[in-house]
Amino acid sequence: MLEQSQTPRAPVVPEIGIGMIGYGFMGRAHTNAYKKLGYIIYPPPAIPRLEAIAGLDAGEVTAAAARFGYRSHYTDWRRMIDNDQVQVVDNGGPNHLHLEPTLLAAEAGKHLICEKPLARTAEEGWQMLEAVRKSSVKHMTAFNYRFVPAVRLMKDLIDEGKLGRIYHFRAVYLQDWLLPYFAVPYLWRMNKEASGSGAGGDLGAHVIDLAHFLLGDIEQVSALARVMVDEVPLPDGSGMGKVDVDNAFAAAIGFKNGAIGALECSRVAAGRKNYQVIEVNGERGSLRFNLERLNELEAYWIDEEPAVTRGFHQILVTETVHPWISNWWPPGHLIGWEHTFVHEMAHFLDCIVNDRNVAPYGATFEDGFRANVVTDAILKSSETRRVVDCDYLGVAVS
Amino acid sequence: MLEQSQTPRAPVVPEIGIGMIGYGFMGRAHTNAYKKLGYIIYPPPAIPRLEAIAGLDAGEVTAAAARFGYRSHYTDWRRMIDNDQVQVVDNGGPNHLHLEPTLLAAEAGKHLICEKPLARTAEEGWQMLEAVRKSSVKHMTAFNYRFVPAVRLMKDLIDEGKLGRIYHFRAVYLQDWLLPYFAVPYLWRMNKEASGSGAGGDLGAHVIDLAHFLLGDIEQVSALARVMVDEVPLPDGSGMGKVDVDNAFAAAIGFKNGAIGALECSRVAAGRKNYQVIEVNGERGSLRFNLERLNELEAYWIDEEPAVTRGFHQILVTETVHPWISNWWPPGHLIGWEHTFVHEMAHFLDCIVNDRNVAPYGATFEDGFRANVVTDAILKSSETRRVVDCDYLGVAVS
Amino acid sequence: MLEQSQTPRAPVVPEIGIGMIGYGFMGRAHTNAYKKLGYIIYPPPAIPRLEAIAGLDAGEVTAAAARFGYRSHYTDWRRMIDNDQVQVVDNGGPNHLHLEPTLLAAEAGKHLICEKPLARTAEEGWQMLEAVRKSSVKHMTAFNYRFVPAVRLMKDLIDEGKLGRIYHFRAVYLQDWLLPYFAVPYLWRMNKEASGSGAGGDLGAHVIDLAHFLLGDIEQVSALARVMVDEVPLPDGSGMGKVDVDNAFAAAIGFKNGAIGALECSRVAAGRKNYQVIEVNGERGSLRFNLERLNELEAYWIDEEPAVTRGFHQILVTETVHPWISNWWPPGHLIGWEHTFVHEMAHFLDCIVNDRNVAPYGATFEDGFRANVVTDAILKSSETRRVVDCDYLGVAVS
Amino acid sequence: MLEQSQTPRAPVVPEIGIGMIGYGFMGRAHTNAYKKLGYIIYPPPAIPRLEAIAGLDAGEVTAAAARFGYRSHYTDWRRMIDNDQVQVVDNGGPNHLHLEPTLLAAEAGKHLICEKPLARTAEEGWQMLEAVRKSSVKHMTAFNYRFVPAVRLMKDLIDEGKLGRIYHFRAVYLQDWLLPYFAVPYLWRMNKEASGSGAGGDLGAHVIDLAHFLLGDIEQVSALARVMVDEVPLPDGSGMGKVDVDNAFAAAIGFKNGAIGALECSRVAAGRKNYQVIEVNGERGSLRFNLERLNELEAYWIDEEPAVTRGFHQILVTETVHPWISNWWPPGHLIGWEHTFVHEMAHFLDCIVNDRNVAPYGATFEDGFRANVVTDAILKSSETRRVVDCDYLGVAVS
Repeated sequence: MLEQSQTPRAPVVPEIGIGMIGYGFMGRAHTNAYKKLGYIIYPPPAIPRLEAIAGLDAGEVTAAAARFGYRSHYTDWRRMIDNDQVQVVDNGGPNHLHLEPTLLAAEAGKHLICEKPLARTAEEGWQMLEAVRKSSVKHMTAFNYRFVPAVRLMKDLIDEGKLGRIYHFRAVYLQDWLLPYFAVPYLWRMNKEASGSGAGGDLGAHVIDLAHFLLGDIEQVSALARVMVDEVPLPDGSGMGKVDVDNAFAAAIGFKNGAIGALECSRVAAGRKNYQVIEVNGERGSLRFNLERLNELEAYWIDEEPAVTRGFHQILVTETVHPWISNWWPPGHLIGWEHTFVHEMAHFLDCIVNDRNVAPYGATFEDGFRANVVTDAILKSSETRRVVDCDYLGVAVS
Repeated sequence: MLEQSQTPRAPVVPEIGIGMIGYGFMGRAHTNAYKKLGYIIYPPPAIPRLEAIAGLDAGEVTAAAARFGYRSHYTDWRRMIDNDQVQVVDNGGPNHLHLEPTLLAAEAGKHLICEKPLARTAEEGWQMLEAVRKSSVKHMTAFNYRFVPAVRLMKDLIDEGKLGRIYHFRAVYLQDWLLPYFAVPYLWRMNKEASGSGAGGDLGAHVIDLAHFLLGDIEQVSALARVMVDEVPLPDGSGMGKVDVDNAFAAAIGFKNGAIGALECSRVAAGRKNYQVIEVNGERGSLRFNLERLNELEAYWIDEEPAVTRGFHQILVTETVHPWISNWWPPGHLIGWEHTFVHEMAHFLDCIVNDRNVAPYGATFEDGFRANVVTDAILKSSETRRVVDCDYLGVAVS
Repeated sequence: MLEQSQTPRAPVVPEIGIGMIGYGFMGRAHTNAYKKLGYIIYPPPAIPRLEAIAGLDAGEVTAAAARFGYRSHYTDWRRMIDNDQVQVVDNGGPNHLHLEPTLLAAEAGKHLICEKPLARTAEEGWQMLEAVRKSSVKHMTAFNYRFVPAVRLMKDLIDEGKLGRIYHFRAVYLQDWLLPYFAVPYLWRMNKEASGSGAGGDLGAHVIDLAHFLLGDIEQVSALARVMVDEVPLPDGSGMGKVDVDNAFAAAIGFKNGAIGALECSRVAAGRKNYQVIEVNGERGSLRFNLERLNELEAYWIDEEPAVTRGFHQILVTETVHPWISNWWPPGHLIGWEHTFVHEMAHFLDCIVNDRNVAPYGATFEDGFRANVVTDAILKSSETRRVVDCDYLGVAVS
Repeated sequence: MLEQSQTPRAPVVPEIGIGMIGYGFMGRAHTNAYKKLGYIIYPPPAIPRLEAIAGLDAGEVTAAAARFGYRSHYTDWRRMIDNDQVQVVDNGGPNHLHLEPTLLAAEAGKHLICEKPLARTAEEGWQMLEAVRKSSVKHMTAFNYRFVPAVRLMKDLIDEGKLGRIYHFRAVYLQDWLLPYFAVPYLWRMNKEASGSGAGGDLGAHVIDLAHFLLGDIEQVSALARVMVDEVPLPDGSGMGKVDVDNAFAAAIGFKNGAIGALECSRVAAGRKNYQVIEVNGERGSLRFNLERLNELEAYWIDEEPAVTRGFHQILVTETVHPWISNWWPPGHLIGWEHTFVHEMAHFLDCIVNDRNVAPYGATFEDGFRANVVTDAILKSSETRRVVDCDYLGVAVS
């Protein structure tokens, strides 16, 4: 009977020091992933060491460090980037704080994760892309929905040719947090200077990235964007704040492969909380995904036999044969939204440690830039009343 | 104990002689409605008398008359229109046979029902509209989905202000009968001369009409239409027939009331059989309808109490309080697709007999023309790569 | 150009004179089927001639005859059975009026359709069964759910062995028309003398018949039946009427083939309108049907490839390959509840005209009796607190 | 600008040493909860310190300690209970290892968490209950589904009287891991000595506990249990292992409050992975929960206005107003199955630290015993072919 009073050694895997910018929603979600992946995906490619966190408010960042176990904390992200123990800079800050930290961190040779949208505009995204290209760092735009098992299964099925030629891609990403409009406090996401765009870069970027991920280049867009709710109360009660970014847009899109479809994103779709629904129709079948039921996928095959039982399959994507699921629980035991980040961060650490490509399964800064290009095209189309071609400046699907 | 060996008299309601053009899908569906409405909606506003049917093939039209009980039949619709006993001409023929019979019948003072799309183009539709305006006849475009109880309930709820200001209207109408593309025989619906357009006038017209019905004027569209399947086998095996109409389109639309949304229609959406899904989001709530579950409606109210049980209501629209349902069966006993025509034809007969307006609940030729305008605008937008304004030529929502 | 002013002859099919007992819900539903089947199922096996209708109230039966076109009407069903032109007696009256008309009609050599439950008790059902056995008439218990295309598809798939050995059958049939209990007027369905039982014979009979149809003999039941709502207002306002039949029951059942499952029927299940849900699990797959979505069926196969897309198929049972659908509309165009009777009556007429067996696809009086046996066993089990064996008295699955 | 290079102090909360028995499925799930709760539920009632883990296989337990960060590990659980630093013994071992560790740990004054079923039989459960009652320790049976936000919401709504008098409780808990039966390796869950029962104690215990949680005492059961798959291959290839526990059961149950319903549990329900569905019908409304969609709840109110939009609400239980959700992510961001344990363990730590009652929201050993009583009654009813009364020996709902 063996007994030990000391913890034995874990498998020898390297540690990687993480420096996090931001302690809000995304800071919390990424941090949670770092804390979990070491024992969930086992053995992990690397152990993420929570080295440092940076945030503007001294009290908040101190509390966040205590809560999550970061070894140090900063109110100046420049100082954090300087920290030798930080090897990955993970930027979970607001959109206007993506550019500068990226430039500095890339120059300092830090690997980079940046929340989406990569930048406020394609032009800004281009600068960020050039910065990481000049250095040898790994880079990832945190499009976490690529790491939903059901979405990755869509990718695999399409790549295997199960749908044949693709005819349609359609997506909506609908939320309703701007309702009731008279009761929502003003925040940076409603401000063009801080966020670049509204629903376009926030919700749109996700479904544009999935369009790129699943079908490739978008050739052209024609769109209408609108500001329905144009002012909301300031949090301090001093009056109303002006909403100067799109609340919603609708776009018709054409792909290089000949497929067409529509995208719709909104912050004013009553009852829709996180309603990202994606449907792909091909000559041999169809797939449909709904983020509010993220453990499920629907699939239809036109030539399935017997014909009398042909119909959309309601797949519970929780079997060990499904992507990443063998790390989790037995069939039928659902995973949650946060777990997409566990997959994503584990993938990125693996890319660093084993020098693998972040693409095609993870989104790089190329992908982040490409999403910016399409968002910009959508807004430009709405302004100019014309079809706008998507000019990726030669940046291919990565 | 009273006993009688002869059938007693029914309530005294007038008879109206029906002359049907076409014995195909729509001829059958309309005829079924005429045969049922007299005992389902009781007492009916009038008894439709199956007076005559016209069709090109002598054998087929003879058989159809026998099957359905038409008193006479014709291979020349002109002769049928001449028949004094025919008071309503119901045109269920293909699109290129809508114009001429309408002009002749209107001149002859016959009331007119015309299958959708009203015409192949807005220009043609305009001629038809002018014809019925010149005469005193009643006219209806057979947009039967206005007569789904759930859709009429949507209309009522919106008109009562339950959704407040409307932000979004989105609709898809997806079918897959062009798949597998190598096995579908060529038919008139793939030919521009016969049909005017493809998915645009066929599926698009329905959802455009519902957009008009529920929200009013469409201000502008920007769209992409495509022909993916461009040839299919000729039925006689003599080779391939060219498909020269759109298989599918995607459009971003803007409404006069400020709402935006997307429309998508397709004949190549694998697994979608009759998948017409409509969603309306307003400042106070949302509604969603799916034709493949036509007895249901979904509704969400943002201010419903208690907040903990707020969610989309899954309404089974089969209660006696619902539109038309008191004519049918007890709660939970579903009606079918064909029954929309029973409501529609009963409404039209009522308008004739009691000199009521077909609008706003039924679609008139004005509505048919308006749908033509938008279909044309969608196709023009796709060709010109520009946003196209919808020019209704002063024809208002009827 | 051929033209005729007279209706041509229909294919020569025989006429069969129908004598209907009852003008209520079921009288209306059966009559509608007779009026439709002649042109929907074409050519029909026979044309049902609406010969006579019988009902207690002279005014009502006169009006019903006028509305539906019955050639004569009676307040005494005995006289109607005497009518030489009546070949089929269709009994849509309340349960206590099933026995006597059946005995008389069978003796008179009339074919018989009887609404479910066949009888108030198995003993009464046995008398009815013996009566039709003595004569050479065709007989059918109107278990119309056997004629839902999705249910017939279940039957076919099970009979083909697609599910392998069956492990489970479970069914609920839930309604809520006894709620709110203080506002429901007293009617015969709450009275034991008139109805024999409550939820047991009303809702239970349907799912018991489907259990027989799909799996065969039930070996034993153990059950609890309850009267929760034990009095409701009398319609004339004179006080309260006593509800002396079960509002609901729950039963565990064991089949001769080794399968087990549960049945639950209720008139007090809030929000459930006509919620009959049936699930069958076998060693190779599962099937599920929901009457509130009667155009759909769900199917799962355990060995379907690829494993990654295994899931319940959502089958829209509206394709031409599906039972009876080729008589109706194109794919995706839903049929309604009433159409089950069109299939059922067409089947019965075919059995008469072509001397075919009503079983196995239609339910005979044997099936009606067998359902009575199980209903009685359920109620007896609840009273005696014991498992009760189902004694079919040698009456096999027909 | 404040900067610190050392982690600041977290809020002062006590630490509690956890000793875990078992490193399998449940050991992993409980451990994950301990590791998360400290930063998710913030500040937590206590910080669980992963003190020790015990398991039979020396290599496995060593690896588990390394993976999860337990400070020490044991192959003899007796020694672990002796460890002074262990304050809570969490028993995630198989059923036959519940009794002895409980008796020893209770005597040693350790707080106790025990996986369900509490015991193999009610008799064994009674011993365990007496043991914890004699000591002053806190005790919890790990019925984690009480900690699904949607289930807790059901509890709250029922307790607030929103459903009025309850008429029905029905539940199924269906899985299919015994299929295909020829390919499933033999394990302890198929062996009566090790597990006590099959589907009864495994799946049945969960839904019985929820019946107790939501409705209270079960008065009687009548049931059928069956072994369909009676042998499966031994893992070592040496032949077949005998399955001597129920694969499935179906039971009709009667509650003390007058409600009736059915329970069905199965390991051979093809396509059902973790299909626990619970429905409660009351005089004023209904609730329905499906574990395969654990972020959702359905609710119906019979008197909701307007009547035209009455229907089951599809509630996405991810709003801050919902139980526990404010600890997680914004609306619409789903939580996973594992998170139920985070709530459960946080609740138990709170009970220890603040000396609160585990009941009514957590399940105590009283609740575990009560579930054993009903499981035993179900199996006894099946054997004796009688209704069996549930004799809780005076142990009330806690």
